[in-house]
Amino acid sequence: MWRGLINKYKKYLPVSEETKVITLCEGNTPLIRAENLEKLMPGLEIYLKYEGLNPTGSFKDRGMTMAVTKAVESGSKAVICASTGNTSASAAAFAAKAGIKAVVLIPNNKIALGKLAQAMVYGAKIIAVEGNFDDALNMVKEISDKNPITLVNSINPNRIEGQKTAAFEVSDQLGDSPDYLCIPVGNAGNITAYFKGFKEYSDKEYISKIPKLFGFQAAGSAPIVDKKVIENPETIATAIRIGNPASWDKALNAIEKSEGLIDKITDEDILKAYNMLGKMEGIFAEPASCISIAGLYKSYKEGKLEKGKKVVCVLTGNGLKDPDIAIKENKDITVLPCDYNVIESEILGGF
Amino acid sequence: MWRGLINKYKKYLPVSEETKVITLCEGNTPLIRAENLEKLMPGLEIYLKYEGLNPTGSFKDRGMTMAVTKAVESGSKAVICASTGNTSASAAAFAAKAGIKAVVLIPNNKIALGKLAQAMVYGAKIIAVEGNFDDALNMVKEISDKNPITLVNSINPNRIEGQKTAAFEVSDQLGDSPDYLCIPVGNAGNITAYFKGFKEYSDKEYISKIPKLFGFQAAGSAPIVDKKVIENPETIATAIRIGNPASWDKALNAIEKSEGLIDKITDEDILKAYNMLGKMEGIFAEPASCISIAGLYKSYKEGKLEKGKKVVCVLTGNGLKDPDIAIKENKDITVLPCDYNVIESEILGGF
Repeated sequence: MWRGLINKYKKYLPVSEETKVITLCEGNTPLIRAENLEKLMPGLEIYLKYEGLNPTGSFKDRGMTMAVTKAVESGSKAVICASTGNTSASAAAFAAKAGIKAVVLIPNNKIALGKLAQAMVYGAKIIAVEGNFDDALNMVKEISDKNPITLVNSINPNRIEGQKTAAFEVSDQLGDSPDYLCIPVGNAGNITAYFKGFKEYSDKEYISKIPKLFGFQAAGSAPIVDKKVIENPETIATAIRIGNPASWDKALNAIEKSEGLIDKITDEDILKAYNMLGKMEGIFAEPASCISIAGLYKSYKEGKLEKGKKVVCVLTGNGLKDPDIAIKENKDITVLPCDYNVIESEILGGF
Repeated sequence: MWRGLINKYKKYLPVSEETKVITLCEGNTPLIRAENLEKLMPGLEIYLKYEGLNPTGSFKDRGMTMAVTKAVESGSKAVICASTGNTSASAAAFAAKAGIKAVVLIPNNKIALGKLAQAMVYGAKIIAVEGNFDDALNMVKEISDKNPITLVNSINPNRIEGQKTAAFEVSDQLGDSPDYLCIPVGNAGNITAYFKGFKEYSDKEYISKIPKLFGFQAAGSAPIVDKKVIENPETIATAIRIGNPASWDKALNAIEKSEGLIDKITDEDILKAYNMLGKMEGIFAEPASCISIAGLYKSYKEGKLEKGKKVVCVLTGNGLKDPDIAIKENKDITVLPCDYNVIESEILGGF
């Protein structure tokens, strides 16, 4: 019986036999063969690591089980973060399970209640600060410095430790590492974590090689590709809308050491991939996740992948988190009278 | 590597070695120990079967992998259903994976786009019929009778076959069947499927007993409990808002043979359980799912469970499918100036 990723991979993680593990049975997400995408990109064997099936709907749960487990071990009475999205949802859920408080600070401009629905359901205390995101982030840093409250934003090093288990899982599922791994890059913690995981498995000779890491940023939010901080990043892929990534140098190191690449993708191509994924593979992923597919397709067309190789695309979050985009992209409903011949002919006409 | 429930349980399912399996790697959902709920109900060992982590976010994927696999095997060029919710999402996703069409008929009164977002993303053809739900259902029956199009509403017997694997999984995860299984009852196909699954495992002596099945209907939509068809069922638990269940007799048989019970739960108690589940266990489930918890709690208080026993509550769908209720139930955001002392005091005051 699967009891979460810390129980499974504890010998690679900073826990001891005495550590009380806080788990929602995160991890163990499916690796789905993408037979239909393969027809578009002959010569490749393509798999989707569907991280949207983690308990709160994103890969953040991998880091958060570690961060909250360590927070409880250290005696913290609460966790705190500045986040308007997946991080706050995950932090709130694990804090609820642990029986400690979660505090979420958000900037009070353009509060999107839909993005906060999960944190609210999980009982987080949500405070809107009169200021911008950096004001909220500075505030949570200061509060966690001066109180027995653990900061669980991505600067918490335990997050990377938990997230690296995704590389272990992909390798265990395939029986070896893939040749390429395509991954969205926002704050750059996840590409850093995958590299760390593959490196550790490679050092133990459990896998034959570290895959080439192909990272992708949204064109309007591509500081690493453009080699400069972006003051006002903009993209439909909100989960990777970050102008100054916390793990910038580590991402560059991962790409260089793995002989990978980093590229940027337009919102138009992200949306094309979003629709391809749903309509060809039956998978509903957040727009940010779909950049893995869009980036793979662009790289394939540019001849950057060898034939006969295995590729894993990481789908970081569940599409259900952003239903508005789904509806905006697809609202083609045909209204017809309740008449058999009319409806049958409409249906058969579509074949 | 998990390759879906048909691959795992094929010897119990109506497939052959030649059957081309259509899978999204459904099943293999976590069974989560609910330590915090156990404190409310001392003497019980409580587990949550979190079916919201299936690929389209509900248990329907178990039946749909079978139904679409058999549709393709029989040469169907499309699947069709009348549904405004989880069934349409699941049918559309598996049809996309299979490369066949999905057609969804809905009544054209009160079209909730949010509930159709998934079917749209997966590329279903959606037709709003000028009529009510029964008109749409009669239409899909007639169209599937007269054309090479497979009906995948719950009257399709392959759905029950796929769904029974949840009983196998629960038993495999625990090493035996639980003593009690609490489950929402709408169309009554799922309780029928669990009973069938436990019966088959019991006949093979893989498990020591068939668990007592505790089924729960919403008070405003409780035809089986009230022993009469409900013309206009009403409940916040929309996924089980059904006035005349297709598997009525089979549900009664499952309850009688397992020495279980069926009861009805108010919307108020469903919402209490919804909040308990989120805030105590860090799990976000559809309101209909939460009736399992509400029903267990009611039965526990009424002394209907023996102490020292294991209980599994089935959480049928992901809470992300219904974000509006989450926001309606929780919109307590505190707006504060960007002042350290004010914010720190607000946070510490909550401890």
